[in-house]
Amino acid sequence: MPSLPTAALSSSSSLPLFPPSSYSSPRKTHSRFCLPFALPRFTNPTHPFRRPMTCSSIPFEKETVISDRPYSFLRDTDGLDDESVRSRFQRMIMDVQDSVCGALEALDGAGNFQEDAWTRPGGGGGISRVLQDGRVFEKAGVNISVVYGVMPPEAYRAAKAAVTDQNPGPVPFFAAGISSVLHPKNPFAPTLHFNYRYFETDAPKESPGAPRQWWFGGGTDLTPSYIFEEDVRHFHSIQKRACDKFDPSFYPRFKKWCDDYFHIKHRDERRGLGGIFFDDLNDYDQEMLLSFATECANSVVPAYVPIVEKRKDTSFNERHKAWQQLRRGRYVEFNLVYDRGTTFGLKTGGRIESILVSLPLTARWEYDHKPEEGSEEWKLLDACMNPKEWI
Amino acid sequence: MPSLPTAALSSSSSLPLFPPSSYSSPRKTHSRFCLPFALPRFTNPTHPFRRPMTCSSIPFEKETVISDRPYSFLRDTDGLDDESVRSRFQRMIMDVQDSVCGALEALDGAGNFQEDAWTRPGGGGGISRVLQDGRVFEKAGVNISVVYGVMPPEAYRAAKAAVTDQNPGPVPFFAAGISSVLHPKNPFAPTLHFNYRYFETDAPKESPGAPRQWWFGGGTDLTPSYIFEEDVRHFHSIQKRACDKFDPSFYPRFKKWCDDYFHIKHRDERRGLGGIFFDDLNDYDQEMLLSFATECANSVVPAYVPIVEKRKDTSFNERHKAWQQLRRGRYVEFNLVYDRGTTFGLKTGGRIESILVSLPLTARWEYDHKPEEGSEEWKLLDACMNPKEWI
Repeated sequence: MPSLPTAALSSSSSLPLFPPSSYSSPRKTHSRFCLPFALPRFTNPTHPFRRPMTCSSIPFEKETVISDRPYSFLRDTDGLDDESVRSRFQRMIMDVQDSVCGALEALDGAGNFQEDAWTRPGGGGGISRVLQDGRVFEKAGVNISVVYGVMPPEAYRAAKAAVTDQNPGPVPFFAAGISSVLHPKNPFAPTLHFNYRYFETDAPKESPGAPRQWWFGGGTDLTPSYIFEEDVRHFHSIQKRACDKFDPSFYPRFKKWCDDYFHIKHRDERRGLGGIFFDDLNDYDQEMLLSFATECANSVVPAYVPIVEKRKDTSFNERHKAWQQLRRGRYVEFNLVYDRGTTFGLKTGGRIESILVSLPLTARWEYDHKPEEGSEEWKLLDACMNPKEWI
Repeated sequence: MPSLPTAALSSSSSLPLFPPSSYSSPRKTHSRFCLPFALPRFTNPTHPFRRPMTCSSIPFEKETVISDRPYSFLRDTDGLDDESVRSRFQRMIMDVQDSVCGALEALDGAGNFQEDAWTRPGGGGGISRVLQDGRVFEKAGVNISVVYGVMPPEAYRAAKAAVTDQNPGPVPFFAAGISSVLHPKNPFAPTLHFNYRYFETDAPKESPGAPRQWWFGGGTDLTPSYIFEEDVRHFHSIQKRACDKFDPSFYPRFKKWCDDYFHIKHRDERRGLGGIFFDDLNDYDQEMLLSFATECANSVVPAYVPIVEKRKDTSFNERHKAWQQLRRGRYVEFNLVYDRGTTFGLKTGGRIESILVSLPLTARWEYDHKPEEGSEEWKLLDACMNPKEWI
């Protein structure tokens, strides 16, 4: 089995899903599973640098491949309450998966999403959808998952900032999320990533009255190879509009968080031109944040589809394609080296094909490539190194 | 600046060099540097799991690009003693760089190595050579470097297993190595990696009579996309022949170490078909190990060149090329996720273009690709999942 991660990981920006390990011979199957996306950041309130707590690997029951997507992945006890936040969040991500995939198939005009669905005996499951080698899209993945798991008690205590010596035992939790990466073929059509997730602990058995902890996380960000200012402004405007409906501080705060998160540190470049990103968000009204996450997820299609519609048939040459491939190399570097969802998934035995569907179909690394100063390639690189205010 | 690594790293299997950060606008330059390759594994003898010690980032002086390669990168005080192990190891890696690059240029018949050389004011430096887009080779890097650095005292104490409360202060060390990755174009011609390095501490100032610590590390391994048994047997035979000249236990031990090290854990696959690998080797006579490392490095050309000579012009189709590209994706996964030299270099601010010259020119990731059972692609995958004894 892979070794355990040495530090807790907080957010998942990639495709942090956990579908069946359906690979047959010569592939070995894994019988032990961990979180489908990384736990929220359990900071230690007594530590001056708020170092994340260590998170253990947590075994999951083996999943069962199913032929039809179910109405719900919630446990029966949860599912009876259709008004719970977990139930409504699940409904939302299922709806968004449908609407995004529908819009992308219409945009592509040729490719169709291949679907894999699965459940686990004790509750939870997921639906993975991938469109590969379409007319417009090279590779597009839109995955949802629901997980029931158990977190280490020290992580729960730290999260609660509780000052007790009692050992509450492992704390059950619920997590659900949608995650997507879309790579078009045309070098003038940008890559998109989005991810929205909800996380909730159960009260520990020993303290049934203790309050539940919950968090929202997510974001939507754009990664073009060439800058069309009108496209980037359109994209950020839609993000801002979604944010402004809830709090005027959201867009500037989450825009900066996005620039900070998608930082390829070893190159001092951002992966792309940003968007919004937030994590461990629980210091607002829960209903308000559910509506906010819903609004953001519903903004994916209007933010992205018109841009690809406009650029998908633009003529390009080998130079444009090679530059796109070099930028895809950067995407690979970010996802494999820094992305918390990806690195956590790889280290804890997740289903690799689902985790790595976020990688582009092809990528390129040239030794010491330097775009000519002032060129369109140089302008993109400059914007990745010096994040701009687009609106 | 990038954040510090959380654990000491032991070996460098990639291209762990530290040439000048010569990239100009819009690239920012770094003024602070760390080790060009990872420190040996400083295990804690009191810890039951021998967890590696934490290693701090260590600043280096800014390097100076030079037009001609010097006779030596050693400090004057070192360089006067041509019979020292550090001096002879440096001479060896310089000679091997010359002989390997010469053999590869002759084999390629078209491409030439581009050379970058640099020194640092306080001693140390390196020579980076890259051949890109040749007739036979897509990308070939052969780098050497010499470093004078300082290691944290706790690492030195742990390495010595000393039981003292005295703080000896930071411990100066010397390290030198050659590292190379060669990616041919033809999908039937395998990728090769080799790396040989020597590491030595100075005695601490407070205890000038204390014995120096030293280690050798390195290895040579083959990564084909298709198996030609005669090629793999030839390659392993040359490794075994080099090993057997010194100790009959070396080949079986270092062959297994290689299979264990180049393990893509999240896929439970090896990167390729192995070879030899060893690290932190100091429990043999120092002269014997210097001769052994020299023998291994000198075996690179006879082990590899005849294979590429035989396969470089074999006709291939799109399927062969696509499979090679998928296997190159695995190479990227190993190097970015697991390779200690690469991950250490990325996190400590090394010159990216030199560290990542080990990555292939192009790579590919298809969702859920499964080779047909019994096919040539399946056989390669099977051999990567179930390492074989080739000789």
